[in-house]
Amino acid sequence: MSAPGKIILHGEHAVVYGKPALATSLNLRTTIHLSGNDGSIFILCLPSIDINKAWEVTDLELLYSTIQEGNGSIPSSPDTATLSRLRQFTDAEDGNAKDLAIIVFLYLHSQIIGSRGSLAALRVVVGSDLPVGAGLGSSAAYSVSLAAVLLVLAGQIRQIPNSWTREELGLVNSWAFEAERIIHGNPSGVDNAVSTYGGLILYRKGEALKPARGNSLQVVIVNSHVPRSTKRLVEKVKERLDKYPEIIRPMLESMEALVVKALDTMQGFENSDANVCYDILEELIDINQSQLNVLGVGHLSLEHICLLCQQNDFHCKLTGAGGGGCAFVLIRPDASKEKVKTLIKSIEEAGYMSWLTSIGGSGVTLHESMPLSS
Amino acid sequence: MSAPGKIILHGEHAVVYGKPALATSLNLRTTIHLSGNDGSIFILCLPSIDINKAWEVTDLELLYSTIQEGNGSIPSSPDTATLSRLRQFTDAEDGNAKDLAIIVFLYLHSQIIGSRGSLAALRVVVGSDLPVGAGLGSSAAYSVSLAAVLLVLAGQIRQIPNSWTREELGLVNSWAFEAERIIHGNPSGVDNAVSTYGGLILYRKGEALKPARGNSLQVVIVNSHVPRSTKRLVEKVKERLDKYPEIIRPMLESMEALVVKALDTMQGFENSDANVCYDILEELIDINQSQLNVLGVGHLSLEHICLLCQQNDFHCKLTGAGGGGCAFVLIRPDASKEKVKTLIKSIEEAGYMSWLTSIGGSGVTLHESMPLSS
Repeated sequence: MSAPGKIILHGEHAVVYGKPALATSLNLRTTIHLSGNDGSIFILCLPSIDINKAWEVTDLELLYSTIQEGNGSIPSSPDTATLSRLRQFTDAEDGNAKDLAIIVFLYLHSQIIGSRGSLAALRVVVGSDLPVGAGLGSSAAYSVSLAAVLLVLAGQIRQIPNSWTREELGLVNSWAFEAERIIHGNPSGVDNAVSTYGGLILYRKGEALKPARGNSLQVVIVNSHVPRSTKRLVEKVKERLDKYPEIIRPMLESMEALVVKALDTMQGFENSDANVCYDILEELIDINQSQLNVLGVGHLSLEHICLLCQQNDFHCKLTGAGGGGCAFVLIRPDASKEKVKTLIKSIEEAGYMSWLTSIGGSGVTLHESMPLSS
Repeated sequence: MSAPGKIILHGEHAVVYGKPALATSLNLRTTIHLSGNDGSIFILCLPSIDINKAWEVTDLELLYSTIQEGNGSIPSSPDTATLSRLRQFTDAEDGNAKDLAIIVFLYLHSQIIGSRGSLAALRVVVGSDLPVGAGLGSSAAYSVSLAAVLLVLAGQIRQIPNSWTREELGLVNSWAFEAERIIHGNPSGVDNAVSTYGGLILYRKGEALKPARGNSLQVVIVNSHVPRSTKRLVEKVKERLDKYPEIIRPMLESMEALVVKALDTMQGFENSDANVCYDILEELIDINQSQLNVLGVGHLSLEHICLLCQQNDFHCKLTGAGGGGCAFVLIRPDASKEKVKTLIKSIEEAGYMSWLTSIGGSGVTLHESMPLSS
């Protein structure tokens, strides 16, 4: 089972002020391999964040008997006692990403497989292409792939690659959202929706998410490695808006119009000249990057990355909070391998990390048969 | 006699769409030294553009007797016959900057000093700090200083340093505008107004120019040396506006609000904490630079210059048409000499030319006594 990460294509920050944003699946994926384990040991292994847990199945059965009873077909949040019991079981520290990953696993496992009765000994190995905490939706990819694998195991969704119904995907998405709530407190639900459904999602505060199909496009993701606080950057935009309302308010209007145009273009590939679509997308990337600079969420490292892209005739913008973090570069299908190689070389020589991948592709995907016994 | 160049602080390009723009005097000056010349030879010398003319005074008298009769107190445009006669006299090629400088000299000299009767032999030496064709108002500085020196010589304005009345300055400005029309065809009149009055000028298409006092601020002017066509850049913005009206129109609103805020701030130094004013001006520079990038009039070289400034903790924007050309960097009064030196070094090492100077200062200025005989 695998599920993709996400990037925000356009609309970040403006979304805080009720404007729409456009997110899309990122084909850097989190993959879960599930296999039966001999004996009575249950194993959870996430090498990318250095988790390697082995529990006696009977210990898990005992734990699950003391927490709320789950029903795989009815996604629900943990009650306070359950959360507290899971935290206690894992010796969790507040906000520790590793602890949260384990708690999410135990919660989904207990609720979807059933918290009463005997458990199978399993070996759950989670691999991920996604950097953690870089705004690329790594926790949602984990939550979605985990929910999906457990729902298949529980027989709640069918074990048939790539043919889940809207309802089955809805169930995966809802459980993943519960997991995301444990990890993030009050997430928008965009990351898990993108990871579940793939493609594009248009979202706006207070409105239902609008999944949409778009073309799958090649990109290079660049990690500036500059740590940033989303909260601080959102505050910074608020300060600028309060200080210069007459300047910033029209900017937000402009950003809204850009999101609408980007969605139209992403959806219009089939009926238009692809070259014209790419030209527009490149222009929108440049425009939106400058708009985000107007809001003050740029960063020297991002300017540097954009400059390297420009020098190589590519177009690039920050994605997510800005102030560091990640950027994406659109790669046209007619860009020669040599040219892309030169771009990547110049980015990496400047000390940034990059991934050549795609956006707009499949959501959660079943890749192989899994043991059906729970 | 000297007159300053100009930069556009904010509002370039938006001004094409009826929004206000803010221009200010640039203390890179064109200086005219006038002295009596022994004998009958009249000398016009502009070493910076390689002009070194010597005429028999009688030849000028003969020329002037064949063109329209001037009146120094009534600025007027050359009629077609006069312009054609002057072009013929100078063997002028179409649009050649050197030829235009000579024609402007002959026209103003004939009209202000008088085109009938005997002329004094003079030596007119024009020096300039301003690069030609870089959007820094070099032709206006020439036209203004030339008009002023001739008007003093003709007794039309008084030979008293720094105490010209509004009317006297108005006469200088009007003659300079006539000169600018010969050079540029259909100039806005902003360059000559800034060069005449100094300080700030707020202007908007179809409205009277609004001269305003502001603080004099230190800047570094950077010449990217990238040649650009203002016409082409104006077309480029038009194309982007036509292609993305919903995105670009609000940008223009935003740029208008920024100009208003910048003017307020420039005029507010006396009643505010200077540090707060500088903070605002720096932010407005960053914002406006990004806005201009949204319009698509940036350039790799300008991005590079802005990046060098950011790396040295300074704020920078393009000025004028963009797409190359010049940029300015605001220098706060508390910036150490060492820091400014480091900035300039990094700019010049990158292959750009720079001038440490000031904006917002005096307009046309009489520096020394001149011969009163004409």
